[in-house]
Amino acid sequence: MAEKLVLAYSGGLDTSVAIPWLKEKGYDVIAVVLDVGQHGKDLNAIQAKALTVGAVESIVIDAKSEFAEQYVAPVIKANMLYEGEYPMVSALSRPLIIKKLVDIAHENEAGAIAHGSTGHGNDQVRFEAAIHALDPEMKIEAPIRDFQWSREEEIEYAHAHDVPVPIGLESPYSIDENLWGRANEAGILENPWNQAPEDAYALTAAIEDAPNTPEFIDITFEAGVPVALNGETLNLADLIIQLNELAGAHGIGRIDHIENRLVGIKSREIYEAPAAAVLMTAHKDLEDLTLERDVAHFKPIVEQQLANLVYEAKWVSPLFDSLMAFIDDTQKNVNGVVKMKMLKGNAIAVARQSENNSLYDEDLATYTSSSSFDQESAVGFIKLWTLSNTVYEQVNHVHSTAKKDTIK
Amino acid sequence: MAEKLVLAYSGGLDTSVAIPWLKEKGYDVIAVVLDVGQHGKDLNAIQAKALTVGAVESIVIDAKSEFAEQYVAPVIKANMLYEGEYPMVSALSRPLIIKKLVDIAHENEAGAIAHGSTGHGNDQVRFEAAIHALDPEMKIEAPIRDFQWSREEEIEYAHAHDVPVPIGLESPYSIDENLWGRANEAGILENPWNQAPEDAYALTAAIEDAPNTPEFIDITFEAGVPVALNGETLNLADLIIQLNELAGAHGIGRIDHIENRLVGIKSREIYEAPAAAVLMTAHKDLEDLTLERDVAHFKPIVEQQLANLVYEAKWVSPLFDSLMAFIDDTQKNVNGVVKMKMLKGNAIAVARQSENNSLYDEDLATYTSSSSFDQESAVGFIKLWTLSNTVYEQVNHVHSTAKKDTIK
Amino acid sequence: MAEKLVLAYSGGLDTSVAIPWLKEKGYDVIAVVLDVGQHGKDLNAIQAKALTVGAVESIVIDAKSEFAEQYVAPVIKANMLYEGEYPMVSALSRPLIIKKLVDIAHENEAGAIAHGSTGHGNDQVRFEAAIHALDPEMKIEAPIRDFQWSREEEIEYAHAHDVPVPIGLESPYSIDENLWGRANEAGILENPWNQAPEDAYALTAAIEDAPNTPEFIDITFEAGVPVALNGETLNLADLIIQLNELAGAHGIGRIDHIENRLVGIKSREIYEAPAAAVLMTAHKDLEDLTLERDVAHFKPIVEQQLANLVYEAKWVSPLFDSLMAFIDDTQKNVNGVVKMKMLKGNAIAVARQSENNSLYDEDLATYTSSSSFDQESAVGFIKLWTLSNTVYEQVNHVHSTAKKDTIK
Amino acid sequence: MAEKLVLAYSGGLDTSVAIPWLKEKGYDVIAVVLDVGQHGKDLNAIQAKALTVGAVESIVIDAKSEFAEQYVAPVIKANMLYEGEYPMVSALSRPLIIKKLVDIAHENEAGAIAHGSTGHGNDQVRFEAAIHALDPEMKIEAPIRDFQWSREEEIEYAHAHDVPVPIGLESPYSIDENLWGRANEAGILENPWNQAPEDAYALTAAIEDAPNTPEFIDITFEAGVPVALNGETLNLADLIIQLNELAGAHGIGRIDHIENRLVGIKSREIYEAPAAAVLMTAHKDLEDLTLERDVAHFKPIVEQQLANLVYEAKWVSPLFDSLMAFIDDTQKNVNGVVKMKMLKGNAIAVARQSENNSLYDEDLATYTSSSSFDQESAVGFIKLWTLSNTVYEQVNHVHSTAKKDTIK
Repeated sequence: MAEKLVLAYSGGLDTSVAIPWLKEKGYDVIAVVLDVGQHGKDLNAIQAKALTVGAVESIVIDAKSEFAEQYVAPVIKANMLYEGEYPMVSALSRPLIIKKLVDIAHENEAGAIAHGSTGHGNDQVRFEAAIHALDPEMKIEAPIRDFQWSREEEIEYAHAHDVPVPIGLESPYSIDENLWGRANEAGILENPWNQAPEDAYALTAAIEDAPNTPEFIDITFEAGVPVALNGETLNLADLIIQLNELAGAHGIGRIDHIENRLVGIKSREIYEAPAAAVLMTAHKDLEDLTLERDVAHFKPIVEQQLANLVYEAKWVSPLFDSLMAFIDDTQKNVNGVVKMKMLKGNAIAVARQSENNSLYDEDLATYTSSSSFDQESAVGFIKLWTLSNTVYEQVNHVHSTAKKDTIK
Repeated sequence: MAEKLVLAYSGGLDTSVAIPWLKEKGYDVIAVVLDVGQHGKDLNAIQAKALTVGAVESIVIDAKSEFAEQYVAPVIKANMLYEGEYPMVSALSRPLIIKKLVDIAHENEAGAIAHGSTGHGNDQVRFEAAIHALDPEMKIEAPIRDFQWSREEEIEYAHAHDVPVPIGLESPYSIDENLWGRANEAGILENPWNQAPEDAYALTAAIEDAPNTPEFIDITFEAGVPVALNGETLNLADLIIQLNELAGAHGIGRIDHIENRLVGIKSREIYEAPAAAVLMTAHKDLEDLTLERDVAHFKPIVEQQLANLVYEAKWVSPLFDSLMAFIDDTQKNVNGVVKMKMLKGNAIAVARQSENNSLYDEDLATYTSSSSFDQESAVGFIKLWTLSNTVYEQVNHVHSTAKKDTIK
Repeated sequence: MAEKLVLAYSGGLDTSVAIPWLKEKGYDVIAVVLDVGQHGKDLNAIQAKALTVGAVESIVIDAKSEFAEQYVAPVIKANMLYEGEYPMVSALSRPLIIKKLVDIAHENEAGAIAHGSTGHGNDQVRFEAAIHALDPEMKIEAPIRDFQWSREEEIEYAHAHDVPVPIGLESPYSIDENLWGRANEAGILENPWNQAPEDAYALTAAIEDAPNTPEFIDITFEAGVPVALNGETLNLADLIIQLNELAGAHGIGRIDHIENRLVGIKSREIYEAPAAAVLMTAHKDLEDLTLERDVAHFKPIVEQQLANLVYEAKWVSPLFDSLMAFIDDTQKNVNGVVKMKMLKGNAIAVARQSENNSLYDEDLATYTSSSSFDQESAVGFIKLWTLSNTVYEQVNHVHSTAKKDTIK
Repeated sequence: MAEKLVLAYSGGLDTSVAIPWLKEKGYDVIAVVLDVGQHGKDLNAIQAKALTVGAVESIVIDAKSEFAEQYVAPVIKANMLYEGEYPMVSALSRPLIIKKLVDIAHENEAGAIAHGSTGHGNDQVRFEAAIHALDPEMKIEAPIRDFQWSREEEIEYAHAHDVPVPIGLESPYSIDENLWGRANEAGILENPWNQAPEDAYALTAAIEDAPNTPEFIDITFEAGVPVALNGETLNLADLIIQLNELAGAHGIGRIDHIENRLVGIKSREIYEAPAAAVLMTAHKDLEDLTLERDVAHFKPIVEQQLANLVYEAKWVSPLFDSLMAFIDDTQKNVNGVVKMKMLKGNAIAVARQSENNSLYDEDLATYTSSSSFDQESAVGFIKLWTLSNTVYEQVNHVHSTAKKDTIK
């Protein structure tokens, strides 16, 4: 009797040829597609295709809400941007996909899981790290990494095994997408001096073509998570999907990034993440209003650590959990509304308020003479704030000619 | 005989009324204006005005080149953005102004220095920190902080002492400017829910009014510092001044920031820094191409520390110097050209190259089968990369149901 | 009618003369002494003395358990050592004292709180920071900082107001103590080249005089907190008090530290903290066994931040709370027993075990050929672990003469 | 003609059997032993042995001075302790050994380098990382990792190839040593609940057996590096070797550490590093006297990063170089003398002075009324130091019941 294997299936050529290949290796393949908000995919057709090319079972799971609430929300709360630029697209869906696959494997007593990643990217690490963590006994198959076919060999194998080869295979791009964004690499983009051609983008208008009239949108946050657009309460997945449309039309969210892959090489990536650009800008702006200074100044260190962890395949890890305990505690008071202006590629926070948690105190901040701020305090503050540097200069004369025995 | 005092003079009402006030306190006032690239100021008129209102001497110093090379260049190399948003405008000129004033005080045997800051802002700390460090024996006068007049009282005092009160005094804004940018606070901006009115801006076109045709500009860096625009070599001050014009016309560089002042309160600031937006984006992009990964991932911690130090009045400090030793060492190989696209408020790095220092290796990065990347290595890498987390899960079962004795 | 004031009373000369001084200022003084485990103090006598010298009410509170559980436990869990050396003594009791004083002030409708700190130390900041945070409307009196008397003037004032002047006032030391340790400064210690004389110590034997026979003690931790000594369950306050005796007899816990005070100057402090030395060494050792690597490598950054916060008077702050959320999450699995050897000033972790949470896997770690560790994986791991540095060297030739086109 | 290979030779069984094994693989083996201060090794005998067992050439290099000055000094300056405990022993010699081997390979036109590490430790990574960085074209052989023999198989192979099997092979320990210390693992130590037996140690007396009379020693530092013992100038290698004797006799420098290996597993290590314990304690103590506070508080973050880099095989890396640029800049003023007391396992800094660079100012620090410290400044300082937390509490009432509109 064949051993059961659960395959992370996308409907594309790679994971389709993997099915007969795994079958020849002796597996009964259960294909699983997660709906994490990929744009414009016919999941029913994909589900059917898996069976056509040889899967014994084919499963589609709508995971959009779970993806948004459990995987995207932490990115917003922690302002996670890998290398300051990339808001995490593929890195987020991988641990969720594996969580579902491991569950299905356990339900079906399958002993192996397969993924469609190659051997020089990050995703193989993310898939396998999650499998190791969630079930270290689980066997892992990585057919695309194993067979290392050229495109021609792959097509030949597909023809020989009745795997339909999609028209438009000639697309020079390698795409991954979910509701949080779209990643595009390879082809002409591999020369960093080449500008990304317009057909590398799918979710966003070119800035040149976007309307010259601004659109304003109010985003409401509770505990650091967006809960409403223009006052209308939405679940997070729907909010993101709607906002992708709105912001994409204004040309917002294009990213052209030379990034350091986990496996030690640099790659050039083109991302689109319209909702992410709007929501993360708004979230940071509301934090500026509601976080106490010391919190605001330490949080970026945790944020960078989290971004690295997530990018580097350690979503399922105790450090991730402990860092998120910190983040969640900081977000308790991040409540309020940010007015965003969307115009010609720009997502600008133009106004913000927090009814109960604003730490901005007009009366303290004003320069008018009626300010309640005690200006006398500044004199003493400055003396002690600078004292250790003053003593240093008196002793070491690095920048000064001051003499030691003269502190006033 | 009166004691000599050197005053940081701006030509505005505050430092103009300070002159008779300091005179009444018994000082001979030497007024000093630094040209750090303030936009549209007639420095000769300012110089003359100081004498008119009672200064015994009035000095103008062209410090634009020194400012750009010694104070702005470190900001670019270290990607310094206070709280992720503010590229340092006023915080940069203060230590240079004091350096010059201390020198002039020493040449003239003056025993005191005066600045025109109020008591609830950051600049008083920056001025006085630098004075303490450069000459701890120097006496400090801060007349505006001391007299704490209302606007009406100040104008009355001005009239009584023949200090001309400028037309347009009713301007609701408090402005500071140098070649790196312009800071604007107070007035209507003090309510963070108010949008900044168009007249709060002076260096940038509104996005709506900017041309819909992109302008491309090549910026050349050597050791992390911009040295040429479109291939034309320029000293840094001229490069920045030219670029402010170019980028400002495209609506680039507006910042609306609720920031944490050093003195413990939040304030709302409107900045314009067109050249900064272009140069800092380009610089980070070139670093993405030329910095080794571990360097790229640790540098932000140093950058944030530097941004805090500079904002918090510690430019003259041993920590600043030591951190810059780190930064300078990282910049040795940050050489190359970045092509920037300026359009409708956006400054986008669209292409980059580094003849001798690019770490991007097309041959390693490609997904084509001819890649020189050793895909076999990934299997072993993943196992060890994830091993500590795998063991953790086996022992503690936080996310999994794995049993301890089953490591494969 | 006189305004009520709550005074942090110690029974010493400073806070005793403060009572008539505050009375003369128009206050009814409520004296409060907290028992936080000061060694060898007769708290009843202190309570009576306050009334003798003029307090309208005198209160003693046994706060030992609350102090240990709410204030010392976080120090242990977070391995807090200010500047790597000082386990926090005075810095811990200040926020608890204020918490109690604010409560008493509210119960008695007192509008002011007084503390006995001088103007150049840290404690004034800790007292007042906590008051500001817990009740910003509360008035603060700091008589010792205000009257700035010489010792002679203080004694004269005491005699004039019937305040008993203790024999042995000539003690050259300024002491603060609680169950977590004892701090001693001033006098002969102010020259850092002077060795601390033996009479500067009170809780510890000299190493020369300690027994030459080791004493072993098993310390059991649950969730990072010590819960038993040699298998006997104890509440934390009792455990620390007992351990101070045991470890002090072995000469353990002396610290001679040149430290950076918050107010900008360096001071030389002599601490004794015998239990702290044993418990913190044991705790770190158990963490070595039970924390996953990435957690172990990031936690020190949080620990240092916490140590600075606590030392720098920010116990009551949102950043403290958020950082502790991180710490608490890391401590869930820090369960087990550490065997400590106490001998001649040394507290050495010689053995440790954790029944359910040890991540040490003898089978993986062994060098014998039967190890389950997959040595083949290392080859691939090393290649990718070092790849970004290898590419860097190929391009930039800093340490090598390697040529670019030769990656294997 | 056989290809030439350079072998890192130790004289032990592992690298001795490697020679015939490599010969069988077709190499001419050039054996190289570095004298990095291993204790009690007869390097001439080792050199001869290599030839006996089949090497074509055998080279001994005295690298003690280079090791001390180029590899140990940075550890002292940066207070590098891996996981707060391990002062780097093996991690330091590996990059130097490789540097020498690569040079010899180039001189001899050898195309391969071999090392004697197994596949589950750190040293394989350190050796190969350095080779990749210094010459990415160099072929690497790791015979011990490859043949994975049991002890019995290894001895059988040795007998069959006339490799002498040393008496005392039954030693249960795996040792590595250089002048900076000695590392010992394996055997009975693999159970962390077992106490390390006395025969696991070689450089240090048991505390019980050490003299009960203290020995005082003055250590002079210049720019953070020890240059003299008791006033006698010594080169660093000699200073360390002498101090190992002195401190080892007092039982100083034993470390029992459960550490996280780079390859993802925990291991239990017994180290001895007597001189390191004394010098690093003294160095930190002198820094307490001479580093400005902000420098002192940021440096530990760099130190931890450096310790991780060195442990994790990245000595030859651009990040190491840039971090050391920071460290070197901080050490300019770390000049002075520290008096260390060595007694019964303790290395205690009891006094310290710095003629020109001490930042300790007795006059500022004193509590006597004649202090030059301006106590009035404290009041203003405290108000602004705590203001952001005070506002936070007023708004959010986390710890207080304060009302918003009441800032004084």
